[in-house]
Amino acid sequence: MSLTQVRIILVEPAGPLNVGSVARVMKNMALERLILVNPQCDPLSEEAKRMAVHGIDVLEQAQRVSSLPEALQGCQRAIATTGRPRTSTSLETPKNALPWLLTPHLTSALIFGPEDRGLSNEELNYAQRFVCIPSNSEYPSLNLAQSVAVCTYELYQAAQNPQNVPPYPATEPASLDILEGYYQHLETFLLKIGYLHPHTATAKMEKFRKLYNRANLSAEEVALLRGIVGHIDALWYLVNRNQ
Amino acid sequence: MSLTQVRIILVEPAGPLNVGSVARVMKNMALERLILVNPQCDPLSEEAKRMAVHGIDVLEQAQRVSSLPEALQGCQRAIATTGRPRTSTSLETPKNALPWLLTPHLTSALIFGPEDRGLSNEELNYAQRFVCIPSNSEYPSLNLAQSVAVCTYELYQAAQNPQNVPPYPATEPASLDILEGYYQHLETFLLKIGYLHPHTATAKMEKFRKLYNRANLSAEEVALLRGIVGHIDALWYLVNRNQ
Repeated sequence: MSLTQVRIILVEPAGPLNVGSVARVMKNMALERLILVNPQCDPLSEEAKRMAVHGIDVLEQAQRVSSLPEALQGCQRAIATTGRPRTSTSLETPKNALPWLLTPHLTSALIFGPEDRGLSNEELNYAQRFVCIPSNSEYPSLNLAQSVAVCTYELYQAAQNPQNVPPYPATEPASLDILEGYYQHLETFLLKIGYLHPHTATAKMEKFRKLYNRANLSAEEVALLRGIVGHIDALWYLVNRNQ
Repeated sequence: MSLTQVRIILVEPAGPLNVGSVARVMKNMALERLILVNPQCDPLSEEAKRMAVHGIDVLEQAQRVSSLPEALQGCQRAIATTGRPRTSTSLETPKNALPWLLTPHLTSALIFGPEDRGLSNEELNYAQRFVCIPSNSEYPSLNLAQSVAVCTYELYQAAQNPQNVPPYPATEPASLDILEGYYQHLETFLLKIGYLHPHTATAKMEKFRKLYNRANLSAEEVALLRGIVGHIDALWYLVNRNQ
């Protein structure tokens, strides 16, 4: 179990002061890997560097990518942070959910949204669990760098007290890109056979995602499920050809 | 038990961005009272206001004072934050120590030092307990506003789960200014009678402070102790006059 297995992903950060502060607190909390999805500011600007102080190496080594799936490549577990209650999914506290990212031998990610809007529903869909920092309902929206401070503080504490971290699961979970490939395949197929309709597909697919995420699927199980979809797809083709 | 009984004290903050961010996260965590001891920046500068966002009222109502004892006036409990191990006092985690500030019917304070040097030993002496945010030994020094975020997050959670907060003590503790008056009185007296020597007085007095802070003295008990000092002082005067 190691803190270095957790990557911090910032989606479209716009404030260089925030990006610099995030690098600093990551260093404080022994985290190394920062990924910036389509940053809206220069992460190596003077402002960012000034806030990073001795976390400058985290900032300089930060990876820039153009999409969230790219940032999640190879990750087996992802938790998204959100300030808003999400209809179909229960929110957890950082203290309860984050130790799960430290399960031994996995690669995991903690995702933060843009300062102004937070993560969209589409972006939230890439995560398996969702945390919300408990706060005053009058003004619940925390500054990005302070949200990262609170979450990485909980991660650091969980790593110091590994007895609280859930045990290594019996099956190795599939990486998120493999899961995502299955979800896309399933959606395309269900639209084609008319089970899904374009205007309700997203909502229905969220239910599938929720169910499968809870099941903690292995790569083998995803292959099995894709096999069924592929098989029915082939039959569907034959039936239609013969009509 | 209420979060509004806890004041946040920043000693000589130098960064307006930090002061603004502190105001914001205080609002996020339902804290209202910010006290700035001898601020080294303009807390109402544009930079500070920009970071405060909807915590602007906390910033505008922040009180400015010229000394830490003034900021602690009327407080019955104070916890200081520090990044350095202190020889004579054990450091606690925010999670363990901070709920103590929420004991019902008391006024309490959480003290943060300047960005560059943290709290001095003299400043730490005004507090009864000491917290240190667990962090990476390679770079343990957190940004001021992020430290406040972590601590106020723990306070907010403690307030949400009051079963974890220690019960109301049987005796009402003396306010810190009353305690401080006693410590000053005792030190002056002990120097005069030659029990303390100027070059070792501070170290010896720290031992007395530690002992008395642990005892959770009431105002009546402090009056009793001061009475003894005053009485012996008077006898000392008579003895010396007659020699």
